[in-house]
Amino acid sequence: MADTLPDDHYRITYEEVHEHICGAAKRIKDEFDPDVILAVAGGGLFPARVLRTFLKRPSLIDPAKMRNVPISVVSLALYEESAASTAGTLGKEVVRTQWLDAKAIRGARGVEEGKGEGLLGKNILIVDEVDDSRTTLQYAYNELSKDVRTALAALTPEERAALPPTRFGIFVVNNKERTKKGALPIYPADTTRANEPITESGIGEGCFYWAAKTTADLWIEYPWEQEDILEHNRLAALAKKLGANQGN
Amino acid sequence: MADTLPDDHYRITYEEVHEHICGAAKRIKDEFDPDVILAVAGGGLFPARVLRTFLKRPSLIDPAKMRNVPISVVSLALYEESAASTAGTLGKEVVRTQWLDAKAIRGARGVEEGKGEGLLGKNILIVDEVDDSRTTLQYAYNELSKDVRTALAALTPEERAALPPTRFGIFVVNNKERTKKGALPIYPADTTRANEPITESGIGEGCFYWAAKTTADLWIEYPWEQEDILEHNRLAALAKKLGANQGN
Repeated sequence: MADTLPDDHYRITYEEVHEHICGAAKRIKDEFDPDVILAVAGGGLFPARVLRTFLKRPSLIDPAKMRNVPISVVSLALYEESAASTAGTLGKEVVRTQWLDAKAIRGARGVEEGKGEGLLGKNILIVDEVDDSRTTLQYAYNELSKDVRTALAALTPEERAALPPTRFGIFVVNNKERTKKGALPIYPADTTRANEPITESGIGEGCFYWAAKTTADLWIEYPWEQEDILEHNRLAALAKKLGANQGN
Repeated sequence: MADTLPDDHYRITYEEVHEHICGAAKRIKDEFDPDVILAVAGGGLFPARVLRTFLKRPSLIDPAKMRNVPISVVSLALYEESAASTAGTLGKEVVRTQWLDAKAIRGARGVEEGKGEGLLGKNILIVDEVDDSRTTLQYAYNELSKDVRTALAALTPEERAALPPTRFGIFVVNNKERTKKGALPIYPADTTRANEPITESGIGEGCFYWAAKTTADLWIEYPWEQEDILEHNRLAALAKKLGANQGN
């Protein structure tokens, strides 16, 4: 096999993605401590599952036990051509193919921890693999926060007052340094849960944001997209040895 | 670091899981060719995403383009203690925490390929990481097929007659050789789509089933559950070298 790279793609191994997520998880746990993870399918599925490993918290029912943060999934790319989705671009029209119904947003009454609690009053972390053009993330954040505002508006003032703030955070493995087409109301770096601006209806005015790695505007080859994972790993190791296409 | 194993767990690396899925994907593609993947969260998230890489199909709208199979997610373990979930056991009560709403089952009318098509008349593949006690899979299959039957019953006879059969398949990375608590109506090995028994309402009487690997009744350590992925890989390599805890 040739000792040259076939292209300028940035190849990342499973172990590297895993370690990137591990590194970011400590900050996310300290700064946000998510109650629920919303993975954006399909790219967010792997990062969400790995992230959960690092975000366990003591159960409220039995503090001796560690509880997993629940993962729900929203799916956006309706008509998803695989070539387009690999490039991280989406069609003009972004449609919900799987979403959370009103009950999943609002939650049921008087439920036990982990049983149909809904999103209101929670720290909600949206997870995707890459922040590329930011289109998908803008849509996911806007639509989810709209649904939460609608659900909050349907509560009585007493119910709203009894809830902690509903906060949004976004986590991606790679944030590409490029012109973004979508916009997100990301808080300044010195914003914490203690000084976060909260609207009258009880929702954060913007969102927290973490990227495990800031990456040059290269085509990223993720391991879960590869038909030949051993060849992928070989090329990733070769690129590292040559100091080429490392995304920074 | 000691050259001994800390326990008798079966440790599997990302690359091994990926290659297992690759091997099974060829059979699944030939024998079933799924229209849609339903991942069971959280364990099914990684296998579903990798499997999709191997199941692309030409778009009906533009056959020059390859299309991804859509992934939806169902989430079952409501009150999920992490210790229990790691062991693959569930509480007595299995509750839907995220499910497909009626519209996602039935689909919308006159939609384009990939846009809200629903499950009726489709080859539906349920994906999880392990078939352990079979409890989760039984619940997932029973509830999904019940929802499909309800949606089929709501169609007119003409609409039903115009639909191809709705088929169910199940894919897991590891099937543990042990006594199963749950039951699945798995077809005999010689069943194909051509001779599959279909009910009058147009749904397969049972389900197809693929396991990438049949595994001894050992505790399986998946890579996405690991806090230290490099130590996990070291122990997996050591076990292989010692010929111990290989799950077969």
